[in-house]
Amino acid sequence: MKELPENTLNRLIIYLKILESLEKKRVDSISSEDLAKLSGVNSAQLRKDLSYIGTLGTKGVGYTVKALKYNLKKFLGRTEEWNIIVGGLTPLSRYLIEHSQLQKEGFFITAAFDTEPENIGLVVGGVSVYNLDQLSYVCKAIRVDIGIIATDKEQEVYFSAFVKHGIKAILNLSSYPLFPEDETIKVENLSVVHGLTKLSYYLKNLGS
Amino acid sequence: MKELPENTLNRLIIYLKILESLEKKRVDSISSEDLAKLSGVNSAQLRKDLSYIGTLGTKGVGYTVKALKYNLKKFLGRTEEWNIIVGGLTPLSRYLIEHSQLQKEGFFITAAFDTEPENIGLVVGGVSVYNLDQLSYVCKAIRVDIGIIATDKEQEVYFSAFVKHGIKAILNLSSYPLFPEDETIKVENLSVVHGLTKLSYYLKNLGS
Repeated sequence: MKELPENTLNRLIIYLKILESLEKKRVDSISSEDLAKLSGVNSAQLRKDLSYIGTLGTKGVGYTVKALKYNLKKFLGRTEEWNIIVGGLTPLSRYLIEHSQLQKEGFFITAAFDTEPENIGLVVGGVSVYNLDQLSYVCKAIRVDIGIIATDKEQEVYFSAFVKHGIKAILNLSSYPLFPEDETIKVENLSVVHGLTKLSYYLKNLGS
Repeated sequence: MKELPENTLNRLIIYLKILESLEKKRVDSISSEDLAKLSGVNSAQLRKDLSYIGTLGTKGVGYTVKALKYNLKKFLGRTEEWNIIVGGLTPLSRYLIEHSQLQKEGFFITAAFDTEPENIGLVVGGVSVYNLDQLSYVCKAIRVDIGIIATDKEQEVYFSAFVKHGIKAILNLSSYPLFPEDETIKVENLSVVHGLTKLSYYLKNLGS
């Protein structure tokens, strides 16, 4: 199996999202040119990317939306359901639990962890808040696939605890980027400040 | 001026964040090896990246934390303050306004926009909510640098309005990726579901 470059992975996820939206609008098929345009790439790039999942469009017809969506979803592990725990009971984790509709996408937040005594035992949007000390207990009771770090205060504490308890996939939403020493652990760093800084760099150079 | 590759830009932003944290911990200087390790890269990569901002470490001493931080900050446009408007009064935009501490980082949310009559005229965390129709009025009254799209419902409506009113930098936090036709407009697509899908792809292939 060819190893998938990260930029290709990013684009495949974008194609999936665009196709989901087309399916909702009851679009049956789409040309590679149109799908490429909606995805911000050219059609040669699109076809090359889709060759990774072994999908070829039919000349003159293009892609069947439903079929390509399903193939992408399967390729990306999104036909499965994933169990998530969240580190830090913060406004951000409350938002993720109560409003972000992750569940609709197959991502189930099953427990939250905190270190402040007054937060332990709370139930937020149906999700129990445990002491971080109880992580090993929870990891034995339920399958945990992904850990989300949703605090800017003790991100390294949650990170170490997640790694120690065998969690292999971590979404770090703190503004401080984290890098695992163990290469079998995958961390995605996702920060609003990071995104805004890319824009501030762009704006600063806009006039020059 | 050499054009900066996006992956290099991403790493420069990471170095800045690491250096800010080192400065808070009152670390005066750091070797390129140690800074590289904290940033998840090797030191050859770090030195190459920093050559874009014209910074060379001193052999045997490494980098002065304060100076390198300042140079990076300036290079990235982060010594300036940026005015932000938010599209959509949602739990996510409320979180950004009330809890995300963007202001500390120099990003000031100055107005919010919505299309629901019951939200117009509200004041959330000191920020007024305007009807999207009033965008041209607000854009005349204040300088708007960045537009954030913080809704999953009418993202394209806010996107078109932002573009139409000359906003050149857009952070799209909806789960639907947006791509401008006009190449002078920069859009950053940042989605939790996208990040989680990168992890689901990783987990799906972990066993194989």
